[in-house]
Amino acid sequence: MSYQEALNTSARILMGPGPSNVHPRVLKAMATPLVGHLDPQFLEVMDDIKLMLQRALQTQNHLTFAVSAPGSAGMETCLVNLLEPGDEALICVNGVFGNRMSDIVERCGARLIRVDAPWGESIDPAHVEQALQNCSPKLVAVVHAETSTGVLQPLETLSELAHEAGALFVVDAVTSFCGTEIKMDEWQIDALYSGTQKCLSAPPGLSPVSFSDRAIKVLDERKTKVQSWFLDLTMVKNYWQGAKRAYHHTAPVSAMFALREALQLVMEEGLQNRFIRHRQNHELLREGLKELGFEFLVKPEYRLPMLNAVVLPQGLDDAGVRKRLLEEYDIEIGGGLGDLAGKIWRIGLMGESSSKNHVNMLLAALKTIMG
Amino acid sequence: MSYQEALNTSARILMGPGPSNVHPRVLKAMATPLVGHLDPQFLEVMDDIKLMLQRALQTQNHLTFAVSAPGSAGMETCLVNLLEPGDEALICVNGVFGNRMSDIVERCGARLIRVDAPWGESIDPAHVEQALQNCSPKLVAVVHAETSTGVLQPLETLSELAHEAGALFVVDAVTSFCGTEIKMDEWQIDALYSGTQKCLSAPPGLSPVSFSDRAIKVLDERKTKVQSWFLDLTMVKNYWQGAKRAYHHTAPVSAMFALREALQLVMEEGLQNRFIRHRQNHELLREGLKELGFEFLVKPEYRLPMLNAVVLPQGLDDAGVRKRLLEEYDIEIGGGLGDLAGKIWRIGLMGESSSKNHVNMLLAALKTIMG
Repeated sequence: MSYQEALNTSARILMGPGPSNVHPRVLKAMATPLVGHLDPQFLEVMDDIKLMLQRALQTQNHLTFAVSAPGSAGMETCLVNLLEPGDEALICVNGVFGNRMSDIVERCGARLIRVDAPWGESIDPAHVEQALQNCSPKLVAVVHAETSTGVLQPLETLSELAHEAGALFVVDAVTSFCGTEIKMDEWQIDALYSGTQKCLSAPPGLSPVSFSDRAIKVLDERKTKVQSWFLDLTMVKNYWQGAKRAYHHTAPVSAMFALREALQLVMEEGLQNRFIRHRQNHELLREGLKELGFEFLVKPEYRLPMLNAVVLPQGLDDAGVRKRLLEEYDIEIGGGLGDLAGKIWRIGLMGESSSKNHVNMLLAALKTIMG
Repeated sequence: MSYQEALNTSARILMGPGPSNVHPRVLKAMATPLVGHLDPQFLEVMDDIKLMLQRALQTQNHLTFAVSAPGSAGMETCLVNLLEPGDEALICVNGVFGNRMSDIVERCGARLIRVDAPWGESIDPAHVEQALQNCSPKLVAVVHAETSTGVLQPLETLSELAHEAGALFVVDAVTSFCGTEIKMDEWQIDALYSGTQKCLSAPPGLSPVSFSDRAIKVLDERKTKVQSWFLDLTMVKNYWQGAKRAYHHTAPVSAMFALREALQLVMEEGLQNRFIRHRQNHELLREGLKELGFEFLVKPEYRLPMLNAVVLPQGLDDAGVRKRLLEEYDIEIGGGLGDLAGKIWRIGLMGESSSKNHVNMLLAALKTIMG
């Protein structure tokens, strides 16, 4: 394909760590001719998005919207708005995304307290409790679904510990959002960021976020300006809510059309049905992979249904098999990151990609390739 | 439209300050089923984008790519990567976007030196020269096309002054990109950011940027980490270039498909033809508006062809007429910002929106409404 030729990509089955496949209705909505970012019709689209995000997160939070950039910008939004130089932040780290949060905390000029767990394991609340004896963090943050390892983190105990210590509780829900239960209000999550390209099955490029009244109070009481202009919620919120919508930046209109449609599909399916579908396809995949000699990296009780981290059988050619899957079967799966590179695969069953047919296609292809 | 209904927006003619109308080919490319953000086919798409951005900016700069967020994130990318706490930065301010740069400079912990001109006028190089006597800025930054006022800023003299003072020269080309000449290399621009939703006529959501070798040297010699993780070029560049593309964030795949197609349309039309078209449609609009009693805010030699700032005739109902244009004719034009609110209109003729037919439609509608 030369740069002068028409776009000519393959019809991939996306079973990596995201993006996932996108429903034709979402692609079609995205291709709708644009309206302006301050058009009354677009403000309605924004209101619809806010309402459906609230339902998907099971929250009443007023400040619920989509950051105009991918999930890592959502992560940065949460941290730069809630932290000021000199604050303490306790970050739970058991994979790439906890590491990334730690990095951002330091870039905020805040003091980082880390609670680590080995990659592939969940964070032990006892370790967080212990760490909280020796610090007074403004926030405790954890990754709900670690995309780098396939670990699901139970949130309720950590939330209690954070609040007992007077801290806000911040959650990375990039991979869990719309694929497994998130009860933002009941679990007292104060700030949450997500992505569109995982279990929601919209294209990548936006980050749904939500903030509790406690978090907004912290924001309102800041003594310093937020270090990022683009992500500064004290301004962004006036574009997403209130009687007079104030221009901040030009919102990605087409991506928002896609997000609205993807959320509609979630509402039509029903949250619980969607979670069950993710769980059932995970079980189907698990049984098939076991037959092929793969072991799961993560203990059963902490396994993510939408991101299956499996240890490669001895002698299996990681890159070679993944290349054949892509070239001969148009199936994308993910390799390991960091220390897990070459040791695990990450097989995504997210949103539209989570279907019996996809599981069957992948298992059959693997059976053929692995002989 | 309730949140449960299908997306049902009007077919708007977008003649405001952006977004502009998007060509059907671009909408269609954007609706292409996704491939992964590390798929070899997507890396080719990124290479094509880089090549066409270089041509559109008339530059050989290796570090030329699209930031995965709108223009204001491109602005922030340039400033947070090139500035460190304690640095000096000279910002030219004659509208909203110069102000925004100043705000970001302060959020970087840098010392701000402002050179102001009244809104609607260009920056006088003599004032910059004078200011440079009393400071040693790391960069001098200016807005090429001030979207808030319709002023075109000549760049060559300012670039010389900046370099004589040992500073980098940084340019906001959000509204000028693909609508009027930008010779990045010949004019020795060191860092430039743009947007996709103006004269390029792709949907909003990405910010094309380019950095000279001088700028990269400054980046390489930083003593502190870039304050934004998401915008940190020391990492982002390893995703856009080099033999081994390293995952940084999940790129907005669909938006990149759209960007590639929009750039192809620019290449097919030819840069000079495109600039002439923007100029001619501006002239057609100018003559018609004069007959209707509008005066231009800006002197002829500094007028932008793609963003026409016109002073409202005495007694004209700003919001009322714009509302009728939108509701009765599906035509969007922009009002004034800041002190110019209620005093001017901003009529965009950008990219696909810049056509004789659109000019004629708007003039006819205005003639009817204004009686």
